[in-house]
Amino acid sequence: MTDLACAHCRGTNEDRLWSGDLYRVVLVHETGFEGWARVIWNTHVTEITDLPAPQQSMALQAVLALERALRAELAPDKINIASLATGMPHLHVHVIPRFRDDPTFPEPVWLPAQRSSARVLPEGFADRMKSRLAEELGLSGPL
Amino acid sequence: MTDLACAHCRGTNEDRLWSGDLYRVVLVHETGFEGWARVIWNTHVTEITDLPAPQQSMALQAVLALERALRAELAPDKINIASLATGMPHLHVHVIPRFRDDPTFPEPVWLPAQRSSARVLPEGFADRMKSRLAEELGLSGPL
Repeated sequence: MTDLACAHCRGTNEDRLWSGDLYRVVLVHETGFEGWARVIWNTHVTEITDLPAPQQSMALQAVLALERALRAELAPDKINIASLATGMPHLHVHVIPRFRDDPTFPEPVWLPAQRSSARVLPEGFADRMKSRLAEELGLSGPL
Repeated sequence: MTDLACAHCRGTNEDRLWSGDLYRVVLVHETGFEGWARVIWNTHVTEITDLPAPQQSMALQAVLALERALRAELAPDKINIASLATGMPHLHVHVIPRFRDDPTFPEPVWLPAQRSSARVLPEGFADRMKSRLAEELGLSGPL
């Protein structure tokens, strides 16, 4: 099912780290929160428990693989995981590396910024993430 | 490992729906968000990927069971799942039923309230949740 009003259905202008038949993994470029990534289900599904059980496991394995890859690459102070999509219900899971100097630490990323942060991703980050995810999740389709 | 400064290590004054050797499920009584529940790991673990793989699966199966039970009992407009614990890193996962008239809908629950909400849980809710979780997760220990 596709909803043309839904940005996650359209899936344009995404910086993809991995892409498959059922879901993709994208890098979100949010100032002060570089490294923020998402697992986005390809079809317009509302809740993870709407999926057949094997696909629920696949979605969660992707989230765990993404957490492992972000920890290995960035060594964040904390990882945040969130599946919200309250206003536009298309299943996607945020995996967000948190650092003591990020704009809202230790509060949730959705709160107003308490400070600015100039953190940038290390050189080659996206390529190494792609390799790590391919190793954990299998070959990626066309990104 | 236990950290006496950590409320989730102490685990006092909790309204428990399920309790086992590795984790428990508790009901949070947050005004306007009744039905908000948490899976709390019993030991002071920072990230889900710090757990051995079988325990990662157990934690996630508990989250899915909790989502299914909340959907069956409350038919919310949306479910939010979040594992944050940014300031006090003790693994716990929020499973939050969202309703169009809740205080922050469609924004995250951590944002300022836009309205008040007098939603109350249906009679017998906690008992039915306990039964559903026992059926899905096995027998509970002493609550």
